[in-house]
Formats: sequence, C-alpha cells, structure tokens
Amino acid sequence: MKQLSSLELQKQINAYIEALSYMRDPRKLYDPIDYVLTLGGKRLRPVLMLMAYNMYREDVNRIFSQAAAIEVYHNFTLLHDDLMDHATVRRGKSTVHVKWNENTAILSGDTMLILSYYYMLQNCSSNLMETVMFEFGRAALEVCEGQQLDMEFETMSEVSEDEYLKMIRLKTSVLLACALKIGALLGGASGQDAQMLYDFGIKIGLAFQLQDDYLDVYGDTALFGKNIGGDILCNKKTFMLITALKNADEKTRLHLQKWLLDQQCQPSDKIKAVTEIYNELSVPDICKAKIQSYYKEGMELLDRLSVAPEKKTILSSYIVGLMQRNL
Amino acid sequence: MKQLSSLELQKQINAYIEALSYMRDPRKLYDPIDYVLTLGGKRLRPVLMLMAYNMYREDVNRIFSQAAAIEVYHNFTLLHDDLMDHATVRRGKSTVHVKWNENTAILSGDTMLILSYYYMLQNCSSNLMETVMFEFGRAALEVCEGQQLDMEFETMSEVSEDEYLKMIRLKTSVLLACALKIGALLGGASGQDAQMLYDFGIKIGLAFQLQDDYLDVYGDTALFGKNIGGDILCNKKTFMLITALKNADEKTRLHLQKWLLDQQCQPSDKIKAVTEIYNELSVPDICKAKIQSYYKEGMELLDRLSVAPEKKTILSSYIVGLMQRNL
Repeated sequence: MKQLSSLELQKQINAYIEALSYMRDPRKLYDPIDYVLTLGGKRLRPVLMLMAYNMYREDVNRIFSQAAAIEVYHNFTLLHDDLMDHATVRRGKSTVHVKWNENTAILSGDTMLILSYYYMLQNCSSNLMETVMFEFGRAALEVCEGQQLDMEFETMSEVSEDEYLKMIRLKTSVLLACALKIGALLGGASGQDAQMLYDFGIKIGLAFQLQDDYLDVYGDTALFGKNIGGDILCNKKTFMLITALKNADEKTRLHLQKWLLDQQCQPSDKIKAVTEIYNELSVPDICKAKIQSYYKEGMELLDRLSVAPEKKTILSSYIVGLMQRNL
Repeated sequence: MKQLSSLELQKQINAYIEALSYMRDPRKLYDPIDYVLTLGGKRLRPVLMLMAYNMYREDVNRIFSQAAAIEVYHNFTLLHDDLMDHATVRRGKSTVHVKWNENTAILSGDTMLILSYYYMLQNCSSNLMETVMFEFGRAALEVCEGQQLDMEFETMSEVSEDEYLKMIRLKTSVLLACALKIGALLGGASGQDAQMLYDFGIKIGLAFQLQDDYLDVYGDTALFGKNIGGDILCNKKTFMLITALKNADEKTRLHLQKWLLDQQCQPSDKIKAVTEIYNELSVPDICKAKIQSYYKEGMELLDRLSVAPEKKTILSSYIVGLMQRNL
C-alpha cells in the first residue's frame, strides 16, 4: 500500500485548502476567512488526520474535506483567541481584528466555525457520519473549555501542575487526538486502534506544548520563530514557572516573586534573572524529562497499533521531526 | 392524529430546554449559557419546528433535541449580535458581555454554537442526518451573512428596498424556514411539502420583520415591549425609512434628512417629526400592504401543502396570533 510522505500530504492538503472557494457574498465576511486560511502554517492537524487514514487506506483525497474541516476549525480558534488575547500579529501578519475590526473578527470567526462543520459533513461516509460528527463536536467543545481555563489562569494567583496539564490537554491535545481518531475511523480502523491513536495524540500534544514552554526560555530565536522570554515577561503560568514555584525553597520563591511583581525592570534583566532561577531549580531538566516521558508513552501506544510496523514509520518520523525543533 | 396546541408545544420545549444540563466545567463558560437559555422568550423557532413535525407525526418528543438545537443556535446569534451592537439589555436583563465581560460573551457564544450542532445531531434519524445537518448549516451560514449585511448597512448612505429585503430574509426568515423544513422532513414529509414549508417560513419571516419595523413607530409600548421610535432615533434603515426616502419629493427628502442629521434635537421631537413625514408619505399603509402581501403568499403556500386542511389550523392560527400584535 502506498503511503504519502508528510511533505506530500502537507502539499496536497495545502493546495486543497487554498483552492476552497469563498466566492459567496458579502465579501467583507468571507475576505478575512480567505486571509486566515492562506497564511499557511504546518497544517499539523490535517496532516495527522491524513496520516492516520493512510495507515489503513490509500485514497487520502477521499477525506480532504474532513482534513480541511479540522484546519478551518483550528484557525477559527486562533482567530477568536487572538481577539480575546488582544494579539496583534499571527504568522507574521496582522490579526483579523487589527486588519479589519473586532466585529469582523467575531462574525467571520463564527462563520469559520459553521464552515468547519460543513466541511466535516461533506463527503463523509454515511455509516460513520454520526460518530465523526460527535467526535468532532466533543473536541470542539473541549477546546473552548481549555481556552476558558487558560483565560482564568491569568488572574489566578497559583495554578497547580495538574490544573495546567488539564488545560493544555483541552486546549491543544484534544484536537490533535481528534484529528488522528477521525482519520483512523474513516480509514476503517478498529475502534481500539482509533482510540489508541486518540490517546497517542493526547500524549504527543502534551509533549508539544511543554516543548513550546521550554523553547520560550531556551529556544533559538531563529529556529523557534518567536522572541525568547515572551512567557517570562508576561508572567505566563507555563510548566516552567509552575515547576519553579513548586520546587523553590522559601528564599528562592520570594526572589522569583519579586521579579514577577517588578513592572519597572528592563525586560532583558527579568528574562535573565528568571532563567537563572529556572536553572538553579533544574526546571529545564524536569521539563525535558516530562516531555520525554509523554513522548515515550505516545510512541508505546503507536507500537501497539494493529498495523504492520512499516506503516507506522511515516507518522513516527513526522513526530520525531517535530520534537527535534532544537530541544 | 393528535396535535398539540402552540401553548402546549411551547410549554414542553421550554421545559426540555430548561432541563438541559450544563453541569460541565468550567462553570464560568457554562453559566452564561444557562443564563441566556433560561431568559425565556416565545421559543418561536422550536415551536414552528414541532408544529411542522406534528402535521405528519404525533411523537413530537422524538425531535425535542433538534428543536432545542435551533433555539440554542438562535440564542447564540443574539448573544454575539448584542456584543457586536453594544446592546446592554435583552429581555429585560443585562446582556452577557455586560453581566460578565466581552471575552466571556465571545467564548460562551462559540460554545453555544458548538452545542447547537451537538443537539441537532443527537437522536437524529440516521437516514435524514446528512440532509438535516446540511440544511441547518446552510441556514446558520446565511444568518451570519444577514448580520454582516445589517452591520454594513449602518454605514451606507443609502440602502435599496431589495437590499433590505435580502438582509432580513437572511438574518430573520431563513432560520424560521429552516426550522419548519427540518421539522417536516423529520416528520416524514415529502421533499415538496418540506420545501413549501420552507418558502412559507421565508414569507412569514419577512412579514414578521416588517411588522417589527412598523410597530417600532406605530406600536403600543405596553404590548410591543419596546420603546416606540427607537429605530427612528438611531436612524436605522428600516423598511419605513427606506420607503420614505424612496417616495419623498425633493423638499420632503431634505426635510427628512435634516432630522436624520440633527444630533442636538429632543428625542421626542425627532420621533414626532419623522413619524409625521412617514404619515404624509403613506409609509404606514405601504408597509401594512407589504406585510399583508407576504402574509397572504405564505398562507397560500400553506394551503397547497399535501396534508388535510384541519391539520394546518394549529400552525395557521399560531401565525395569525403572532401577526395580530396590535397591527
């Protein structure tokens, strides 16, 4: 059975998404959608869906609409999240509420959410339609729950590691897991395999997010694509900060909190000082160990999948490639 | 075959909607949804869906989930529209972005949209699922398009009657039509009957909206439930204003425009003056004739439906009752 490489899958789904026509009126509603969907990106979720499918069936083009749906949904969440977070830039371009206005961001986002359901439904095999739509809906709901928790954490004085892991599972992992599960189900996988791929997606998503937290402090700006220390500057309760606060003795905790409360300091001084505290407390090692552990648990689930080992290599190599971003 | 009265249907669907449990976490995401869904209202859309169903089948409780879905969707649009319009009160209570905040209004609204799809899917007969979901999705999309046009009209210097009618068809009629069509389809109606009920919904929706425009000027405050002249004060391009501008001679048009541009005048003076211009131009009669014409076209469609005449009386009396709000 022929399996396509990650690059080939990305190319094909990208072409499919860019060719989606929003030639409906009113243009001011659909132009922002066009804009957002042609900003590019890794197309991680559709690629994962297609890879899961491709382990069981060859004709990946049969589920391009579902793969596009998950990407449209993801981009809807980015659009509304950026509005809620007052973010001005996404993928190097102005966000929709900046380029247009807030009402456009609300309404074009709503329209994208409706379109994502439309694409998920389109050409979906009828015996799986109910399952697919429920899986998608559940994930969609959980992503909103994750975003709500993320916003609540901003004003909470302390967030536990468990609470944080629950939030990133909902906000990030669940949609990756759902993409993999739907791909597997549509490919004809057993319920057991589909669920194993779901669980694999959860673990891998957690590893990705913790890696993002790590790279915000220790990444290479050029490779990471964001400025280093952004999370530190806005006191974001990442795995790094939560771990530091948990493991610090009284003196170090006070020292760390002084930096968190200091609004007059030079940004570079704050980044340097907080990073040094992280280093003293072995936070980078603890984080790397946690990432490795999720990664390992994920890969073990992949091993147990009831398909020939050689069929799993494209997916596992893809994940390895994503995990190797200068960690 | 037993058919339930409009009051009985409203009571049953109201009980069903109020019993929907949002016991999920986080509470700050679901509390606003609970709040919005228990504010009451006529439950017009679910009642129409149940009535359409009830012309073909008795067991209306079989589609309570779909009826709730259309109400949840409608309330999602109210929530986001109120945010976009900066409205502070809805059904006598604070709107969600006032009672909570803007981000809550965005995210709880998004969640309601996802929930509406969930309810539409739940217990939907599998042979009709695809049709029902596509019908719902198309209507959902068109409502957004209508809202976009409505917002664009605010800053346009002139809106034609045709443009206005297109906007209210999308923003108001389409969802009533969709409710009726889905109810009919689930009840086992022929495609022809279902389409005729859809078209009936379009006509009746247009009549309702024009009646709203009329009542804003000529209604009885106590019965109408809103202050008279609100549309006049904010220069809203209703059917009344569009008709007046279309039919006015040069002198009257200038007179009308003077009032539209005057931001210093007493509200009561403006309402009185603009109403007098409407009277001179026979705008109320033109509007009433238009309402009657849509109402008549709708009722003719209902006549042609292939069910026994006595089965149509509950629906037609319900519409008559709604049309008689002090017109």
